[in-house]
Amino acid sequence: MPLAPFDWIDDEARRRADAGLVRTLRPRPAEPELLDLASNDYLGLTRHPEVTAAAAEAAHRWGAGATGSRLVTGSTALHAGLERELAAFCGFEAALVLSSGYAANLAALTALTGRGSLIVSDAGNHASIVDGCRLSRAETAVVPHADPEAVAKALHAHDGRALAVTDSVFSVDGDAAPLRGLADVCRARGAALLVDDAHGLGVLGEGGRGALAAAGLAGGEGIVATATLSKSLGSQGGAVLGPARVIDHLVNTARTFIFDTGLAPAAAGAALASLRLLRREPERAGRARTVATALYERLTAAGLTAVRPDAAVVSVRAPSADAAVRWAADCRTAGIAVGCFRPPSVPDGISRLRLTARADLTQAQIANAVETVLRTAPAA
Amino acid sequence: MPLAPFDWIDDEARRRADAGLVRTLRPRPAEPELLDLASNDYLGLTRHPEVTAAAAEAAHRWGAGATGSRLVTGSTALHAGLERELAAFCGFEAALVLSSGYAANLAALTALTGRGSLIVSDAGNHASIVDGCRLSRAETAVVPHADPEAVAKALHAHDGRALAVTDSVFSVDGDAAPLRGLADVCRARGAALLVDDAHGLGVLGEGGRGALAAAGLAGGEGIVATATLSKSLGSQGGAVLGPARVIDHLVNTARTFIFDTGLAPAAAGAALASLRLLRREPERAGRARTVATALYERLTAAGLTAVRPDAAVVSVRAPSADAAVRWAADCRTAGIAVGCFRPPSVPDGISRLRLTARADLTQAQIANAVETVLRTAPAA
Ligand SMILES: Cc1ncc(COP(=O)(O)O)c(C=O)c1O
Ligand SMILES: Cc1ncc(COP(=O)(O)O)c(C=O)c1O
Repeated sequence: MPLAPFDWIDDEARRRADAGLVRTLRPRPAEPELLDLASNDYLGLTRHPEVTAAAAEAAHRWGAGATGSRLVTGSTALHAGLERELAAFCGFEAALVLSSGYAANLAALTALTGRGSLIVSDAGNHASIVDGCRLSRAETAVVPHADPEAVAKALHAHDGRALAVTDSVFSVDGDAAPLRGLADVCRARGAALLVDDAHGLGVLGEGGRGALAAAGLAGGEGIVATATLSKSLGSQGGAVLGPARVIDHLVNTARTFIFDTGLAPAAAGAALASLRLLRREPERAGRARTVATALYERLTAAGLTAVRPDAAVVSVRAPSADAAVRWAADCRTAGIAVGCFRPPSVPDGISRLRLTARADLTQAQIANAVETVLRTAPAA
Repeated sequence: MPLAPFDWIDDEARRRADAGLVRTLRPRPAEPELLDLASNDYLGLTRHPEVTAAAAEAAHRWGAGATGSRLVTGSTALHAGLERELAAFCGFEAALVLSSGYAANLAALTALTGRGSLIVSDAGNHASIVDGCRLSRAETAVVPHADPEAVAKALHAHDGRALAVTDSVFSVDGDAAPLRGLADVCRARGAALLVDDAHGLGVLGEGGRGALAAAGLAGGEGIVATATLSKSLGSQGGAVLGPARVIDHLVNTARTFIFDTGLAPAAAGAALASLRLLRREPERAGRARTVATALYERLTAAGLTAVRPDAAVVSVRAPSADAAVRWAADCRTAGIAVGCFRPPSVPDGISRLRLTARADLTQAQIANAVETVLRTAPAA
């Protein structure tokens, strides 16, 4: 008598429950009830009236969906315009918009590497990069976090095509990658450098042009960036930015581009509106960084352990996974939404609260958030 | 002196150009200039005023983006409502909405299999299923197209957890999978059956409830479906449907769900509006099938070779890749947009025109399309 096909799932669920690691969805209402320090809406644009109006207008004008692959019926002049303006803003020759940042990382990694080539990947890289490495069939060397020397060594040990890949700002701790050092070792070895600027676009660089612009690397011959439209730009979608020949290559070979429906017009329209708003109000980028620094300084001055933020993410250590969960829940009860990272989502097993700065937080909101996080902090 | 990192791309581009296989983006204007027989908007809902109004309203009410992972800030009551209504409509206990159908397939395949388990995958399955198999680290047996016997044999040869996966309607030829036969062999071996209903939802089954409802399999213990919101529902996004314990398992383990920003509210709102419209106007589903059959019958009566459509996709053979490209271009010049599938997008190397039926095509439009396809047909 064969087992029922999914009985093993109950065993795993029991193990998760015993370990206190059950995740559940908590749908939120339309009117925010909590002060948000958990989202990735770094510039406070997702509810900006110009941005939501652009989403609405795009749906009316272009339809609710793209209706097909970008290669069949799914490319509109709106997508092309977004690609043009995004590339110009970030300092790259060309851009390609995909349905998510996740899909963008899968596309770039699979199309730019392959069997026989080497990927050198930072140990702290995002899950979508890890999945891209797995899908690519390239040999992958995972190197210690933020360590150009280790990248150089891994590149040195390989003969043939190679690509190093890193988050620009690491999503868990909010620390920045040593991009100039990485670019130097890649250039010396003829390797490409792929930088996921999900948490840098809109926050780093002059007027939020991103981590590569900040490092003077945007538009470089061997440099490719991925970005999401879902964080600073307050929408949904992803993009790959790079030399035109790289973008053409992706159009022809990247499976998560070719075999995926194009990004919905509303999302493309909203991202474009956010981009234009940011060009008009470049101070939003610096403001997000200033808020993050203020959060960090006040929390550490009061005795908490946190990582000095390089962008808009402030990561605060918790003594244990349980304590982190309780801490986040207490903050929520007190009206503040904060993120909580714990195993298995953290590479090093250390649990944290993850606070995100928003450019539109007021002094009073910052003070309230700091007071609440401190008051609910577990004993060290 | 190391090579420049992307010089190899030029060699590949040259090879593609020599083979006549270059793909280029052709952005379309807001006002349709062509009669569309290429999109996957099977029910003609993507520009329906109720659907675009729902997209706009959702953007205004909920913001332009979900602002984070569904597990952090990205779940709204709108997502939860869509999941509830979609599951009920299709006859499943629970549903989970993701940012694309591609992500849904990656999520289901990676979360429900793994190292040591077996995936039995139809040779004609969609690229996102193939990528899901690769990502899963399960052993994958690719079996001949639409062959339950072959699936049985592959399952028989394996000891331990197993899952068979198939498109419900194959995207290239529009033929349906033998779902009842597959369910029988899976049940006999205690294997799970995963069915990608991307092209069945909205078209097959009573009122468009999908291929699994049509086969009397929806809600079965070992049955999981994936769907996209980007075809019949005219929007963007994907879903996994199945027993509640399977959906809970995905919430806890599926990386393309956990580490991806939630679907944009506008896309969720549009899909929900389409679903409600379809419930109110169930005849749309049958109409899409009737139009497909009409296209097939008139084209084959005039001597073309086509596959009898099981849903809304009509696949017409072309004598060669070049001829297919020219044929599609001639249709376009005559005002009709049709799809063109050719290597490497077709598993069997046979090039085709791919026509999609829409429920809202008029008799005059059908006649015009048939006349144009016939008039531009290459000599056999
Ligand atoms: C570093 C990083 N890369 C990629 C992604 C994926 O982007 P998206 O959510 O737009 O798919 C995320 C977060 O979601 C991220 O934090
Ligand atoms: C059979 C099949 N599955 C999955 C997908 C992916 O869905 P989506 O485009 O919503 O990502 C598609 C088409 O795009 C498809 O044809």
